[in-house]
Amino acid sequence: MNKEKMYKKTEIEMIKKRLKNQKIETPSWGYGDSGTRFKVFHQEGAAREIYEKIADAAQVHKYTGITPSVALHIPWDQVDDWLELKEYTEDKGLKIGAINPNLFQEEEYKLGSLTHPDEQIRKKALDHILECIEIMRKTGSKFLSLWLADGTNYPGQDDFKARKHRLEDALQKVYQAMDDDMTLLIEYKFFEPGFYHTDIGDWGMATLLAKKLGPQAKTLVDLGHHPLGTNIEQIVAYLIDEDKLGGFHFNNKKYADDDLTVGSINPYELFLIYNELVAGEEEKEMNVAYMIDQSHNIKPKIEAMIQSVMNIQEAYAKALLVDRESLKEAQQAGDVVMAEEILLDAYRTDVRPLLASIREEMGVPINPLEAYRNSGYASKIAEERG
Amino acid sequence: MNKEKMYKKTEIEMIKKRLKNQKIETPSWGYGDSGTRFKVFHQEGAAREIYEKIADAAQVHKYTGITPSVALHIPWDQVDDWLELKEYTEDKGLKIGAINPNLFQEEEYKLGSLTHPDEQIRKKALDHILECIEIMRKTGSKFLSLWLADGTNYPGQDDFKARKHRLEDALQKVYQAMDDDMTLLIEYKFFEPGFYHTDIGDWGMATLLAKKLGPQAKTLVDLGHHPLGTNIEQIVAYLIDEDKLGGFHFNNKKYADDDLTVGSINPYELFLIYNELVAGEEEKEMNVAYMIDQSHNIKPKIEAMIQSVMNIQEAYAKALLVDRESLKEAQQAGDVVMAEEILLDAYRTDVRPLLASIREEMGVPINPLEAYRNSGYASKIAEERG
Amino acid sequence: MNKEKMYKKTEIEMIKKRLKNQKIETPSWGYGDSGTRFKVFHQEGAAREIYEKIADAAQVHKYTGITPSVALHIPWDQVDDWLELKEYTEDKGLKIGAINPNLFQEEEYKLGSLTHPDEQIRKKALDHILECIEIMRKTGSKFLSLWLADGTNYPGQDDFKARKHRLEDALQKVYQAMDDDMTLLIEYKFFEPGFYHTDIGDWGMATLLAKKLGPQAKTLVDLGHHPLGTNIEQIVAYLIDEDKLGGFHFNNKKYADDDLTVGSINPYELFLIYNELVAGEEEKEMNVAYMIDQSHNIKPKIEAMIQSVMNIQEAYAKALLVDRESLKEAQQAGDVVMAEEILLDAYRTDVRPLLASIREEMGVPINPLEAYRNSGYASKIAEERG
Amino acid sequence: MNKEKMYKKTEIEMIKKRLKNQKIETPSWGYGDSGTRFKVFHQEGAAREIYEKIADAAQVHKYTGITPSVALHIPWDQVDDWLELKEYTEDKGLKIGAINPNLFQEEEYKLGSLTHPDEQIRKKALDHILECIEIMRKTGSKFLSLWLADGTNYPGQDDFKARKHRLEDALQKVYQAMDDDMTLLIEYKFFEPGFYHTDIGDWGMATLLAKKLGPQAKTLVDLGHHPLGTNIEQIVAYLIDEDKLGGFHFNNKKYADDDLTVGSINPYELFLIYNELVAGEEEKEMNVAYMIDQSHNIKPKIEAMIQSVMNIQEAYAKALLVDRESLKEAQQAGDVVMAEEILLDAYRTDVRPLLASIREEMGVPINPLEAYRNSGYASKIAEERG
Repeated sequence: MNKEKMYKKTEIEMIKKRLKNQKIETPSWGYGDSGTRFKVFHQEGAAREIYEKIADAAQVHKYTGITPSVALHIPWDQVDDWLELKEYTEDKGLKIGAINPNLFQEEEYKLGSLTHPDEQIRKKALDHILECIEIMRKTGSKFLSLWLADGTNYPGQDDFKARKHRLEDALQKVYQAMDDDMTLLIEYKFFEPGFYHTDIGDWGMATLLAKKLGPQAKTLVDLGHHPLGTNIEQIVAYLIDEDKLGGFHFNNKKYADDDLTVGSINPYELFLIYNELVAGEEEKEMNVAYMIDQSHNIKPKIEAMIQSVMNIQEAYAKALLVDRESLKEAQQAGDVVMAEEILLDAYRTDVRPLLASIREEMGVPINPLEAYRNSGYASKIAEERG
Repeated sequence: MNKEKMYKKTEIEMIKKRLKNQKIETPSWGYGDSGTRFKVFHQEGAAREIYEKIADAAQVHKYTGITPSVALHIPWDQVDDWLELKEYTEDKGLKIGAINPNLFQEEEYKLGSLTHPDEQIRKKALDHILECIEIMRKTGSKFLSLWLADGTNYPGQDDFKARKHRLEDALQKVYQAMDDDMTLLIEYKFFEPGFYHTDIGDWGMATLLAKKLGPQAKTLVDLGHHPLGTNIEQIVAYLIDEDKLGGFHFNNKKYADDDLTVGSINPYELFLIYNELVAGEEEKEMNVAYMIDQSHNIKPKIEAMIQSVMNIQEAYAKALLVDRESLKEAQQAGDVVMAEEILLDAYRTDVRPLLASIREEMGVPINPLEAYRNSGYASKIAEERG
Repeated sequence: MNKEKMYKKTEIEMIKKRLKNQKIETPSWGYGDSGTRFKVFHQEGAAREIYEKIADAAQVHKYTGITPSVALHIPWDQVDDWLELKEYTEDKGLKIGAINPNLFQEEEYKLGSLTHPDEQIRKKALDHILECIEIMRKTGSKFLSLWLADGTNYPGQDDFKARKHRLEDALQKVYQAMDDDMTLLIEYKFFEPGFYHTDIGDWGMATLLAKKLGPQAKTLVDLGHHPLGTNIEQIVAYLIDEDKLGGFHFNNKKYADDDLTVGSINPYELFLIYNELVAGEEEKEMNVAYMIDQSHNIKPKIEAMIQSVMNIQEAYAKALLVDRESLKEAQQAGDVVMAEEILLDAYRTDVRPLLASIREEMGVPINPLEAYRNSGYASKIAEERG
Repeated sequence: MNKEKMYKKTEIEMIKKRLKNQKIETPSWGYGDSGTRFKVFHQEGAAREIYEKIADAAQVHKYTGITPSVALHIPWDQVDDWLELKEYTEDKGLKIGAINPNLFQEEEYKLGSLTHPDEQIRKKALDHILECIEIMRKTGSKFLSLWLADGTNYPGQDDFKARKHRLEDALQKVYQAMDDDMTLLIEYKFFEPGFYHTDIGDWGMATLLAKKLGPQAKTLVDLGHHPLGTNIEQIVAYLIDEDKLGGFHFNNKKYADDDLTVGSINPYELFLIYNELVAGEEEKEMNVAYMIDQSHNIKPKIEAMIQSVMNIQEAYAKALLVDRESLKEAQQAGDVVMAEEILLDAYRTDVRPLLASIREEMGVPINPLEAYRNSGYASKIAEERG
């Protein structure tokens, strides 16, 4: 009872190795100003364009050591010379990660993009995605990360099935256009900005789509895109089992898609999700894009990103500590209390010493947040960027 | 604007024909005492066994004319002589509808039935379903309606994927055992009685299962089994499109799975669901089991059932009035206001005269609820059944 | 059963009289461009400043006859010469309604306004409200409508009780500054833009505040500001009973604060709310500000506003038809089915003929939406306003 | 940053002292069989009557040292000789805690108890509560813990305001009947078993009632009785500030009122609630009844109760570690990241060594759950109780 596992040295070494191999992608849009529909608050020194965003992302990597790539949003991060951006990024010790097409900020997309009743607008949206695939080729990106804001606001506004067919048709073309080593990540979202319905409204819709398309299409789980009360870790386990877990957009929420710091509302849930991921890793090869998607409206951008990375790292560390053999035994025996306590034993462990140890070995500060705060970078960019 | 459609006589005749063909199945368990976890309230005259339930269901059909079948729950409705029950049912002008196995009321099922860690218990559950298929053969039932209460209450309690595999294995065996003209309806439920996770938790899980099994497996939509804020009509449309809409358990809810009278909380939502069903009917052959699943704890059972049937009938009538041609035009034109008003024009129509007219032609009372109330049946059974 | 009430001529006349006296205030901000955090869509002809907004509001009144006032948002609607605006408004047949201070669009308010940890910022917020009271005096407005966006995004960010005290202190000063014939409306909101907590998060918090302040402080109910599953009509009834119902912000939602057309998601709920209002009117003098608060991102602004007004009018008409005497009898007798059917009898009635009749008598078009569409106003402003 | 507080020896001693003074009441009904509306699962050895329940509660106190009282539910725990029960309880080292009237398990209460339309039934309900006050006198209980299941299932079923008045009248009589040292705890619940409305539906309704009654009436917070997404710690802070926090019913939920082990779904939320309680303790005298209210359907009853107690203890220990001075500074400075990290520093601490230390000093096992499991009590009662 209260089964506290004793770890062998080899086990600890293996856990440390896996922690050092952890990789989390940060999003370019997490470094610029953001806000709610009521107000975008300006932060001093917030990155204004992609080069500044890359520079800021490099800071997060410098202090945490586990965020070596940056996701781009097109056309927000559009540049004339992709090679130059690629080189700049590599100079900063990073690489370009997922490419995110933007299908929601043009006037034409008011009633939809790939699902719009008007064929011309659907074509425009499709062309934009095809252009993003070109950008992937130029930047070496392997993930096309598709969030479709398409939906309707009112009953009757459009035909669910007609929109579904338009979407399936368009994604077939996208899928055909991808290279063999590219993956299409299909994101789902329960609501917003469509307030009556969303065309890809849940993991079921996304996964049925991905199944129709083929093995290079997978489902993307954004932690904030579920109805309240959803068991996300179950969805993650099911997707792993179906070979359809493509990636994550990490964040947290209390009510809607709040885009808060990862783990800030329910850190135990984050641990339970990582518990499934660790179990998955031990069972099969997984090609999962672990990405952060947040918009920190009131916290300093880089600090909040470091916090998020550290919270994810902590969840992974704790999940690695779970005594899976004993857990399986307890489950098989129907010992509900013991099974839960085995998880809790790992969760209750203070993993800060363990993380300090791997950070030391990786040559990054033991306390990334403090080190970043003390570095003077924030005041430097506040001054430089006006 | 506020496009009020004028109907041609032939259109009205067609609408009336479809209304007369509407069929809704009532559940045997809707006629017996029921309650919440806090208290089962006893109603005078509530049916105590299946013969009394059939008799009560016959009353609902007598007064509404559109509820010619009754769903059974096994073993609640278990009898020694199925032929006798079948004949009694037919004598009452009804037939046996869907067979519902019960996999949640045995002590052994505390941790699951088809997903239980113990193979012996899984086998018991499977055997019960196979027995239900035998009962289908004896009673002429064509629908095996499976609600699995399986789930867990605590993190770690069991392994999501192991349970998923157990379930898939079991349902493969069920599917193999069915005759060619039988349909397996797979019901999903967001929560309860498993409070941490449910093995078939949403329409995506149910539909992925149904797809793996084959064309005779379909998804069952219970209106009360969704997270708050779910767009159920979209799920219905998607299932129609995927040829996976197997049936309904009609009821209504305000918060959880409240099992209230159909349409009593949001009648407009019921209309919107029927709007998709009518559109589906006009497009393809649909083999859908329209069933009621309610537990009226405080309303008189038969009255509440008649009310539910009438509310469904009203929703169907209004949905039949929708001017689909104009709706399509408005949708194609992106005229959101007009598209919505076309739906509302139908919804705002008082269809009571139309329903009175078809009832007259069908030879049932114009006002079924009033006629039932005045019939004296309630006091008769109260007396007879003690 | 299905008790269909027969109305006497005098009753119908009384109902018509009350319908003609109905008054709904439209919001200036409902006529300008709006959007979600993802995109503000521009509408051709959308009002750009307060004079245009007043002109558009006058259109809604012209076609519906029941929206004689306009709520202002300060500083969005700030003008140099309030007298001039007042006269312009009166020339258009309208008057200035509630004044809404804006305490969420200044950089200083990132961490709060009246609840901010910094006294200087609290003072700035308070001064703004006091200025709004001055504007009330100049414009003849009698309602100060206060929505406080104050809240926090993260656990620990600030001290709940300290913020509560700051708020109480500030509102005492506001209350003292008001004239005797002014009313302070305190709005509550469950979430957003504070994602962790909102300082006035529910009707209980608003009403406790209003009780501390005195009889001129009341609670404002925005239909979109409740958790899913909330029984809003009960809250309305309780507020009436406590003499604390100050006003409404009408809109509708499916999930969060979606600001959709009133009645577009659950028109029955709107009817049930009006059912309480009608009962209240028959019992006591009520001084309630009926206001619309919507942001129609994809519907044409004026059309959507007319639609909303008509939906509210319909709900009121149906609620007036409720046979309250029979309802009371059924309730007293514990006849749940009959009580519900009495409400449904009114709800099922097609009140369009009744509304056509009062519109005719009021000299407005029988079909306001169609009449507005045909008027050419939309294309006129699209051209004029570029 | 990541401000890790160093504790002085005197601080640690103070924290240990407070931990040793912690008291949690367990409920008699937590030791008997329970279930969902679908099935009550029987547990071997589950307590069958109040004497067995007291014996089991004594086990929880024996192993944890902080659960010295037991709440009773009347008439479930009704005995002829209260003095005998009191003595038996004291012999077991416990005392009788809150008395809970049961107003939901009689046929008469189908449509309500204190709010029922029929005066006779209201009187019966009131008499039952008055009888409970007598039992309080006999047993030395000081808390009357009132959960009212009253509500309706359908629109129109009853009049909200009439029911509110009936409730206020009845509670006035209850309040008058109490002795000066008794406290009335008014519990609220968002939904269930009333599915359309609950007469005391939220903390606002409960607190308005308590304010009307007087200082001996307070609000009871059951963690499972809120809409999803509610910030419960804010409500706790507000109630402390209003001197209206009367007590807790601890449990946890994922969706509805699931009555799961305290802290099992979101342990961070439990910590945040305790964070407010600790802050309150440092500010004023609080007379709060900390009670558990759970129904463990699948976990062994006593084990689950010990788990819950330990989880609460852990939350309190972590909350005591919060560096409140630094927190206040960070809040005042608007340093959101630092303020959050100060809470997290406490939360991340593994308090098991600290708890082991106080347990040792208190003379209870360092690992209560393990010690109980090894004690053989479970098999002993399984045998004895058949």
